[in-house]
Amino acid sequence: MQPISKQSPQSGLAVEYVRVRVYTEKLCEPLEIEDFIPQPVEDVSPARWNIAHTTWFFEEMILKRFVAGYRVFDEKFGFLFNSYYNSAGERTLRGKRGDLSRPTVARIFEYRHHVDSAMAELLSGHVADQLRDLVTLGLNHEQQHQELFLTDIKYTFSMNPLLPAYREGLVPEEDQEPAIEGEHEFEGGIYEIGHDGAGFCFDNELSRHKVLVDDFAIKRNLITNGEFLMFVQDGAYGDFRLWHSEGWDWVKQHSIASPLYWSNIDGEWFTFTLGGNRRMNMSAPVCHISFYEAAAYAEWRGMRLATEFEWEIASDRLDWGRRWEWTVSAYLPYPGFKKPGGAVGEYNGKFMINQMVLRGGSVATPAGHSRTTYRNFFHPHLRWQFTGIRLVKQRGSKF
Amino acid sequence: MQPISKQSPQSGLAVEYVRVRVYTEKLCEPLEIEDFIPQPVEDVSPARWNIAHTTWFFEEMILKRFVAGYRVFDEKFGFLFNSYYNSAGERTLRGKRGDLSRPTVARIFEYRHHVDSAMAELLSGHVADQLRDLVTLGLNHEQQHQELFLTDIKYTFSMNPLLPAYREGLVPEEDQEPAIEGEHEFEGGIYEIGHDGAGFCFDNELSRHKVLVDDFAIKRNLITNGEFLMFVQDGAYGDFRLWHSEGWDWVKQHSIASPLYWSNIDGEWFTFTLGGNRRMNMSAPVCHISFYEAAAYAEWRGMRLATEFEWEIASDRLDWGRRWEWTVSAYLPYPGFKKPGGAVGEYNGKFMINQMVLRGGSVATPAGHSRTTYRNFFHPHLRWQFTGIRLVKQRGSKF
Amino acid sequence: MQPISKQSPQSGLAVEYVRVRVYTEKLCEPLEIEDFIPQPVEDVSPARWNIAHTTWFFEEMILKRFVAGYRVFDEKFGFLFNSYYNSAGERTLRGKRGDLSRPTVARIFEYRHHVDSAMAELLSGHVADQLRDLVTLGLNHEQQHQELFLTDIKYTFSMNPLLPAYREGLVPEEDQEPAIEGEHEFEGGIYEIGHDGAGFCFDNELSRHKVLVDDFAIKRNLITNGEFLMFVQDGAYGDFRLWHSEGWDWVKQHSIASPLYWSNIDGEWFTFTLGGNRRMNMSAPVCHISFYEAAAYAEWRGMRLATEFEWEIASDRLDWGRRWEWTVSAYLPYPGFKKPGGAVGEYNGKFMINQMVLRGGSVATPAGHSRTTYRNFFHPHLRWQFTGIRLVKQRGSKF
Amino acid sequence: MQPISKQSPQSGLAVEYVRVRVYTEKLCEPLEIEDFIPQPVEDVSPARWNIAHTTWFFEEMILKRFVAGYRVFDEKFGFLFNSYYNSAGERTLRGKRGDLSRPTVARIFEYRHHVDSAMAELLSGHVADQLRDLVTLGLNHEQQHQELFLTDIKYTFSMNPLLPAYREGLVPEEDQEPAIEGEHEFEGGIYEIGHDGAGFCFDNELSRHKVLVDDFAIKRNLITNGEFLMFVQDGAYGDFRLWHSEGWDWVKQHSIASPLYWSNIDGEWFTFTLGGNRRMNMSAPVCHISFYEAAAYAEWRGMRLATEFEWEIASDRLDWGRRWEWTVSAYLPYPGFKKPGGAVGEYNGKFMINQMVLRGGSVATPAGHSRTTYRNFFHPHLRWQFTGIRLVKQRGSKF
Repeated sequence: MQPISKQSPQSGLAVEYVRVRVYTEKLCEPLEIEDFIPQPVEDVSPARWNIAHTTWFFEEMILKRFVAGYRVFDEKFGFLFNSYYNSAGERTLRGKRGDLSRPTVARIFEYRHHVDSAMAELLSGHVADQLRDLVTLGLNHEQQHQELFLTDIKYTFSMNPLLPAYREGLVPEEDQEPAIEGEHEFEGGIYEIGHDGAGFCFDNELSRHKVLVDDFAIKRNLITNGEFLMFVQDGAYGDFRLWHSEGWDWVKQHSIASPLYWSNIDGEWFTFTLGGNRRMNMSAPVCHISFYEAAAYAEWRGMRLATEFEWEIASDRLDWGRRWEWTVSAYLPYPGFKKPGGAVGEYNGKFMINQMVLRGGSVATPAGHSRTTYRNFFHPHLRWQFTGIRLVKQRGSKF
Repeated sequence: MQPISKQSPQSGLAVEYVRVRVYTEKLCEPLEIEDFIPQPVEDVSPARWNIAHTTWFFEEMILKRFVAGYRVFDEKFGFLFNSYYNSAGERTLRGKRGDLSRPTVARIFEYRHHVDSAMAELLSGHVADQLRDLVTLGLNHEQQHQELFLTDIKYTFSMNPLLPAYREGLVPEEDQEPAIEGEHEFEGGIYEIGHDGAGFCFDNELSRHKVLVDDFAIKRNLITNGEFLMFVQDGAYGDFRLWHSEGWDWVKQHSIASPLYWSNIDGEWFTFTLGGNRRMNMSAPVCHISFYEAAAYAEWRGMRLATEFEWEIASDRLDWGRRWEWTVSAYLPYPGFKKPGGAVGEYNGKFMINQMVLRGGSVATPAGHSRTTYRNFFHPHLRWQFTGIRLVKQRGSKF
Repeated sequence: MQPISKQSPQSGLAVEYVRVRVYTEKLCEPLEIEDFIPQPVEDVSPARWNIAHTTWFFEEMILKRFVAGYRVFDEKFGFLFNSYYNSAGERTLRGKRGDLSRPTVARIFEYRHHVDSAMAELLSGHVADQLRDLVTLGLNHEQQHQELFLTDIKYTFSMNPLLPAYREGLVPEEDQEPAIEGEHEFEGGIYEIGHDGAGFCFDNELSRHKVLVDDFAIKRNLITNGEFLMFVQDGAYGDFRLWHSEGWDWVKQHSIASPLYWSNIDGEWFTFTLGGNRRMNMSAPVCHISFYEAAAYAEWRGMRLATEFEWEIASDRLDWGRRWEWTVSAYLPYPGFKKPGGAVGEYNGKFMINQMVLRGGSVATPAGHSRTTYRNFFHPHLRWQFTGIRLVKQRGSKF
Repeated sequence: MQPISKQSPQSGLAVEYVRVRVYTEKLCEPLEIEDFIPQPVEDVSPARWNIAHTTWFFEEMILKRFVAGYRVFDEKFGFLFNSYYNSAGERTLRGKRGDLSRPTVARIFEYRHHVDSAMAELLSGHVADQLRDLVTLGLNHEQQHQELFLTDIKYTFSMNPLLPAYREGLVPEEDQEPAIEGEHEFEGGIYEIGHDGAGFCFDNELSRHKVLVDDFAIKRNLITNGEFLMFVQDGAYGDFRLWHSEGWDWVKQHSIASPLYWSNIDGEWFTFTLGGNRRMNMSAPVCHISFYEAAAYAEWRGMRLATEFEWEIASDRLDWGRRWEWTVSAYLPYPGFKKPGGAVGEYNGKFMINQMVLRGGSVATPAGHSRTTYRNFFHPHLRWQFTGIRLVKQRGSKF
């Protein structure tokens, strides 16, 4: 499937708009109306919010600006469905999204369709570059929320003692890791990093620049459940020497003893999936681990995580896309990074502190959405995304 | 309307069971499915929970014990819908009730009807005293949750920027206070307090006992919005001398400046009601005030709140029932108070600390549910019930 | 020893002033300078603060008002050493008292002596009634802080892994409970409660009024460590049925499993005292228990705590004074209670919510300070005072 | 003054030991005993703790291991004065250090002298490499605590309404920034970064490795108070566009409106110094700002902070040493970083998450302690160190 790209011909953009928007609705199909409401923790948004906020983005950033006489669907939605854009005015506190039952889900779908109609009309005419760029950004933004939709509903269901299933078919999260062992080796030297500007990318992937890296050897395979279980069984969650100081505090404070969603029932390991609680597939890539756990695991193995540069250099030879892979790189601006003007300038830059970069993509990432220069980022304690581990062996330095 | 009473003839109990249970469903009618889910603060339960927990009470306390071969609707509901009965096993944490979307509302209604069928069959046969007492307790319990249903949904809607209306007709909360001024005077002396045991009462109303009270004069009228507004406009929320020390901390910490649900829009006062946001009726009884506010108001007026004994002594001459009335009595056991055995022993006694007694009843109290010996109780900072103020003037002591 | 009383002749007041003030300094003798500083929890004040605040009371409430041209020792001390008197202006936050190292202890003693000199001069002349009342209040206030001085330093030392001893001789907290068993029985009827106004009392002991009580039988003895140990060993800290709901939460949240200061070392019970950590004297009255523990113990024994009225009625026949005794009475105003005008009006009334009354006095109470009408009060979870348990058996009601 | 270096001849090490240890005692001279106790916030340790913990380091890491038959001063000090070394056993919780008054300051000085005697004897004999390395580490560790001693006591005094002065002479924090304007320009290319291994360095400065940097121009001068005041007066603390998202939350939550220790009295700016509260010297380098403030200031100026590599490359041409300078580099391991074995392995590596690197040194840094490869690190919200701002202008990229 093709990525959403700013190179699309004009009619192609209208088609892509529909394709992406329809996929969001397809993700909603397995849900009951009740499932759209809860927000069990601040990081996890209600499904209701994910589908309304993405629509708000098109209305706020595009329709209000590009369509003369556009009729706003409901003046209050600007407040209700703004996520973090200070430029766009006041908003509902993030932790309070689950307190709201209105507008109803049906009303939110009306909102989506109202905006979709207006967008269809807008995209049927001449689409100037600035507009095309914003629509493309809006679609990539929606794809990010498609991924969040799945990770959020998985978390919400996992908190329910009934452990309801979402639906398995859409997200085959338990596929086996291929049986190829070993590493890809790379020579140290100067490499180019970052997006080359052809096709869509986020501002944080720019500008393309040179970096100097040492020799390294990166594992072909992600760490599997079975491999991670040995870490658990070795008592690694109780051995402070393997952990960052704040990671150790996190382990102690929350009594962490395994990846998120693991449970041991009568001596057998289970993991909660979008298809419900399942016997653990030991050959599937380990999932839902924090940076702290990924780093401790690497330490336990006498290896380390890749830097984001190493990952990008190696990416063409990697079989990536099932787990977001933690790197040892902090999320910081690339040299010459510039925030765009206006509200979209708040998209990425203001988060460049206290977070770690993840590379790759996951089973929940919409097809074609990610790329080798894509920089995902989360706080090091978070686990509700489909995160995984790929190790690196440092070869002897040649410098 | 008749109170639910243990004196009802056998067939009467079955009829009453249906009457009370149907009224709960009537209360649900104005809601959208989404409205059943949110829990904006720990004290406020989701509607979904209020209607499931009341059903759980009948299944757990009655059907499991009195019906041989009773088929439990769903084994997991025991965990899901237990409120605070340690005797009845583990339960969902109170603050986590809003995190759950399943079982769905439809499934909870199935649960209600399953239990109702079994109860109907049980009540069609001979009803022994112990059973009748428990059914009566269950119905009174359900009526308490009918009141909570309304106060909880009002709070939930008030947190929504859209300020949705529930439905006004069911609860005429803005009726005018009658224009009768003055006090009822009572001679000091020995009075009997507590329930005499005829008809249903809660354990905390027992045993009937004598108390000695001084002369007192109790106001015929509740304090109105207009009267309370003068307190607000006099700067009383900023005058520490009027407040308990913990009340003053509460005012400061939460920036309290008026009763809950009051707002001032362009110089005009509004109050949020079950019918939506309304221009304030200055002649209606003030509502949604904490004990701290009630006590500070009394201090400002140079009067005081009634003790629960004074209130009960005066009750036959009072026009009560629109607001729960804060008293200056702490919620403590009556002399000789005994907790019943088993899980129902957890109903009242364990809450006899840190709470104040309220007497009367409110517009949200089901008809016939309250009585002059009824002891309601809440923590002094809580305001989401329909609470109000009635003042007492101490006459010169004769002792 | 004589109580501090407003009936004292004029010269007597000056003598009493010296006696009380000197005793505070005597309490300081065993301390190192470092010991005056820490505040391990908000409820426990630094020794430094106890000795400065009592001096502030005389300067603020008396010298500034009664001595023309009085030279304030240091203008900033008004802010530093005000406890909770909003009428007296801004003040250091209660939880921040331990953050301050200056003024030094030496400087605070200078402050004491400056104020003492001015007070000596003031009391050498004619002492009008209002002044005598305030001085008497100030001395009783200082005695309350003498008790707090001891309970606060005990708590502070108990938090130190070195478990330092204060000094035992001053406070013989481990005396044996006398071996007299049985109860004192009282006939129900009308009794007078409260202070009769002769001699000093606090405003919360007024006014004297009649109450009606039922027959009761009150234990001659306080519960001993040995008796309480049986409660511990019976698993009572793990049996929710014995506890108030908020008491049970408190037990769980803080992992409470014994009275404060108890420890079990290699199978033997110790208790931390002002003389250091000691093998537990099983015959001494149990100490440092919360209201929740006292009430749970009573429940476990099938008895109850006394009301404050029962205690006062029985007091002449009780051997009281080693432990403050928890009652089942909430701390509420007596009929006709009036707060005095001005800052001293903040002394008692504003705390009449969410606290329980204790009666008696303790080994840490200065001789002559307490009396049978004295109403002490604390929140139900607090344990750092020398609190104990005396039980009551309800006799069959005659009413 | 010479840095403490592992190249020191044997006798030199003994001399350096004395020099460093004596300087700590010199820092204590201006303090009253009371000043050694308080800990106003968790990050700020009591003076008492700084002087005991440094001694503990020598006893725990050296004397216990290298001196057969060494008599431990007090077995409990191991628990009391361990900071964060899990390898060295249990320890006092960091936030509880201010709750302890014992051992007294005098006793801690006895402890110091006991250890100093044993160290003197140990260093008078043959000093093997491993021992010399540990002693050198211990002395550098002590110097870090000398700096903390000053920043901690400054913070503690700043919390006291009396605003006491420590003593100015030791730390001339208000020296003027030299009047040289302009930038130093550097050509992009490959540079070597990290310590070359000659002389002492911390493990986090290793290993020396190559990095590729672009052209850059770094300011000769630190930003002054006067320059920063323009940022304040421009309303920058109220303009979300300049801030990281978490920085903006921090500003809002704590009502931050200026650097730490600034105050405006009657229209005039003051800053609290070790010499007391002073009229602000507009020409002195701005101090006590968080990373968030440094980054927002750079954004406001249209420039940026240096990376730690740029700073190190430029360091030989910079006049550094009065302020620790925030960089835009996250604190992460250098390529090939290895934690030493044993307890000293906990020194640096486990903190490599969620912190930003600072380079340089400050007025509180002991002479000779820092160097151009030194990597200091703090969380981005912290301000109690002597932190400052140096800006970088990106020149057009040549790559």
